[in-house]
Amino acid sequence: MPVDSSRVEKHIIIGGGVGPMAGVALHGKIIEATRAPAGDASHIAVIHLSDSAAIPDRTGYLDALARGAANLVNPGHAMAAVVGRAARALPANTAAVAGIPCNTFHAEPIYSAFQDEVEKTGPALTVINMLTATVDLLKERIGSGTGQRVGVFATNGTRSSRIYDSLLAAHGYRIVQVPEALQPLVHDAIYNPEWGIKAVSPVTGKAAAAVREMALHLVRDRVEAIIPACTELPLALPGTEFEAIPLVDPVLALARALVRDAAPDKLMPLPA
Amino acid sequence: MPVDSSRVEKHIIIGGGVGPMAGVALHGKIIEATRAPAGDASHIAVIHLSDSAAIPDRTGYLDALARGAANLVNPGHAMAAVVGRAARALPANTAAVAGIPCNTFHAEPIYSAFQDEVEKTGPALTVINMLTATVDLLKERIGSGTGQRVGVFATNGTRSSRIYDSLLAAHGYRIVQVPEALQPLVHDAIYNPEWGIKAVSPVTGKAAAAVREMALHLVRDRVEAIIPACTELPLALPGTEFEAIPLVDPVLALARALVRDAAPDKLMPLPA
Repeated sequence: MPVDSSRVEKHIIIGGGVGPMAGVALHGKIIEATRAPAGDASHIAVIHLSDSAAIPDRTGYLDALARGAANLVNPGHAMAAVVGRAARALPANTAAVAGIPCNTFHAEPIYSAFQDEVEKTGPALTVINMLTATVDLLKERIGSGTGQRVGVFATNGTRSSRIYDSLLAAHGYRIVQVPEALQPLVHDAIYNPEWGIKAVSPVTGKAAAAVREMALHLVRDRVEAIIPACTELPLALPGTEFEAIPLVDPVLALARALVRDAAPDKLMPLPA
Repeated sequence: MPVDSSRVEKHIIIGGGVGPMAGVALHGKIIEATRAPAGDASHIAVIHLSDSAAIPDRTGYLDALARGAANLVNPGHAMAAVVGRAARALPANTAAVAGIPCNTFHAEPIYSAFQDEVEKTGPALTVINMLTATVDLLKERIGSGTGQRVGVFATNGTRSSRIYDSLLAAHGYRIVQVPEALQPLVHDAIYNPEWGIKAVSPVTGKAAAAVREMALHLVRDRVEAIIPACTELPLALPGTEFEAIPLVDPVLALARALVRDAAPDKLMPLPA
């Protein structure tokens, strides 16, 4: 699609549904991160396509891939199709920048397939990697990596894919996780069909308590920042700090990176 | 577009951006109103197109119309174009139901223009009227109309268009509003460029205090329910009751009506 450079502000595409409430959180954080002196009219256009049923579960895919299962649908390909559908809603001559608010989605076998597909559509559609944006926000909050301990908690899929391990190590941080024995509780807080964050909105007391218990483990383990590395977790752990330790929310990081890319002059300063 | 009846579940289109955070609130309430025993995969697909800059301010339009101004762009026509763009993101053979989370948008000169335009696209795209949905929810909360006093607070545009007056009267309720002298404070809580809900997210203390003061006025005026009839107001007045008086949030009413229309089996019961 030829892009008219006179329309400099890009639209933002949210590849949502993974999970659906994480897309809503990202959408809200984009609005909050935008300067809007003229009210509604100042806001950046957002196309948010949330089609959960079209995207296979990311953790399930990675598990099946590790078991050597055949004929799997890669969630990266499925999401590229969703983003392609969303792009059909763009006005003529308008570029867009897309983000996917799901950590597990950024595991290499999924994200690289997604990025390859999206890049085929041409230069008018670009993608922000949420993990890269998270490291940028981590640097803003606690400085460049010089061996700081950074707590990460995540789904089984994100943890076993080790995406944060290599990312943080590459930037000079040391990853700290909850003990293996407690990992099922983190997973349950997200996925439990009776009380997990994905199944019940708003967040149940049981899920919130489990998430806080995990965060306390990391605090006692002397971390200097915490990355709640599943997009559902900040719903149970809101705000920018927990027990005086900075929370570096990947969804907030992605929201800010999308605004910066679409309309840099509109990016609000980080809340104090 | 021919619709394959084997795919019974419609997609939901949010004609957003009016204001942008109201679209996010609607989107979240759709998810909360959906039974999701299978987690992500149970959720209804949502296409949420938020393009605030494309839609003229609704109150400004009604004011200009009342002054007899010429060559105005009707926000109803602008929104029909936005919903038309959103519908381009539908998969083949899929029907959709659309909702617009803005009370002032439902004033007759705007909404009728919108509905006429959308109906031209054919039977695969239908629209839920948020005001009709609100009366349905009001009936669920306080029973059919037998002269009950119902408090309504709204923007100048919604108030002067008298849309709620005739709607409530037609269903046997009696409308109660804040005194005329206080109406500028309601308007300011929404529109003030320094501290209004549309300009600053999350809601400022000053805006929240103004909204609560207005709600207390209605309570003292012996209302049996309150309709916060601007979609920004529930952001400052969350929950289902205020001082033990039921809050009938038009955005929640719209969310529930959209879920009921798209996938009736998935509608959650009203929270107690």
